[in-house]
Amino acid sequence: MNTIEKQTGTAFKLKNGEKLKVIDPKGQQVSDMVLFNAKDPREKISGGKTLDFEESILITKGDHLWSNRSNKMMEIIEDTNGRNDFLLAPCSPETFKIMYKNDAYHPSCFENLHTNLAKFNIEPDDIPTAFNIFMNVQFAANGKLSVDPPLSKPGDYVLFEAKMDLIVGLTACSAEDSNGGSFKPIHYEIINQ
Amino acid sequence: MNTIEKQTGTAFKLKNGEKLKVIDPKGQQVSDMVLFNAKDPREKISGGKTLDFEESILITKGDHLWSNRSNKMMEIIEDTNGRNDFLLAPCSPETFKIMYKNDAYHPSCFENLHTNLAKFNIEPDDIPTAFNIFMNVQFAANGKLSVDPPLSKPGDYVLFEAKMDLIVGLTACSAEDSNGGSFKPIHYEIINQ
Repeated sequence: MNTIEKQTGTAFKLKNGEKLKVIDPKGQQVSDMVLFNAKDPREKISGGKTLDFEESILITKGDHLWSNRSNKMMEIIEDTNGRNDFLLAPCSPETFKIMYKNDAYHPSCFENLHTNLAKFNIEPDDIPTAFNIFMNVQFAANGKLSVDPPLSKPGDYVLFEAKMDLIVGLTACSAEDSNGGSFKPIHYEIINQ
Repeated sequence: MNTIEKQTGTAFKLKNGEKLKVIDPKGQQVSDMVLFNAKDPREKISGGKTLDFEESILITKGDHLWSNRSNKMMEIIEDTNGRNDFLLAPCSPETFKIMYKNDAYHPSCFENLHTNLAKFNIEPDDIPTAFNIFMNVQFAANGKLSVDPPLSKPGDYVLFEAKMDLIVGLTACSAEDSNGGSFKPIHYEIINQ
């Protein structure tokens, strides 16, 4: 079992067929995940393609995460919480500056993704909109969005199976709004059988 | 006035401060639009950033289109129809193959974007999820999506103002589902005063 400390991130390779279990150990925490084809990182996870092929804003068990080249990158094998989406971009320094009027330094998923992915030659501009695991973005019929505390309980998890060799970026979200004002770790496990 | 013939696309530069009027001349047609910073095309339109800063799935008058670097690329000055979004990726050869079980050649917004943007050294992998002008994607409370015929009437338009020097890719959508089974042109006008 690996721990992503609060307001940090990590990046690692995951082989085709391996499984990744992303766990919310304390409940009410979000994890942002981005995926790249390990053999050609210009192929990456795409929210638009995933919504297109799965015909849903909410992505859960039985759905796939699709790439910008219309290939399956992961399948969701289990999902004990059931609320994940692609609606909002990873929180970034500008999120805190523009939306929260906070000009001071603030850790962010965007920084935690691109700094950890740099070892794979992935640059800040390469970071796509992430798959927001456990995130509870509510949408009204008129389209208005609100970020509510996650519904995840301690121990809730999502189990993914890789459908190609992947580079994975993964965070424990840094934004107050995403996790009800508290910062918590994320646990993950790589299962290779 | 310029015409984008049915199932085709175009690409052009638009200077900071210039306006772009995208018109549905016959009604019930969709236009996909992508934007790149003309001075550095690695900065491009981002659905995730736009939903974040505008706090809405539906993007209309008064909203901005934001880049992956959290900068404003365009402002929507007028919108006579009022339904545009970033939910689904541009239709592509794989859309027709996987979703419509059509293995034969089919024109697509994705092809019409990347072939027209090639002259600006923009490659297929660089094409982000587009801003879907006039597109009528309905979303249920459970997240399920359906693509309905656009609500736009003949002459409906969206007027954009550029907030930086831009490269614009623009299509008359090729997908049966997006326009109620008919293929129609899109008109556009560049207003530089």
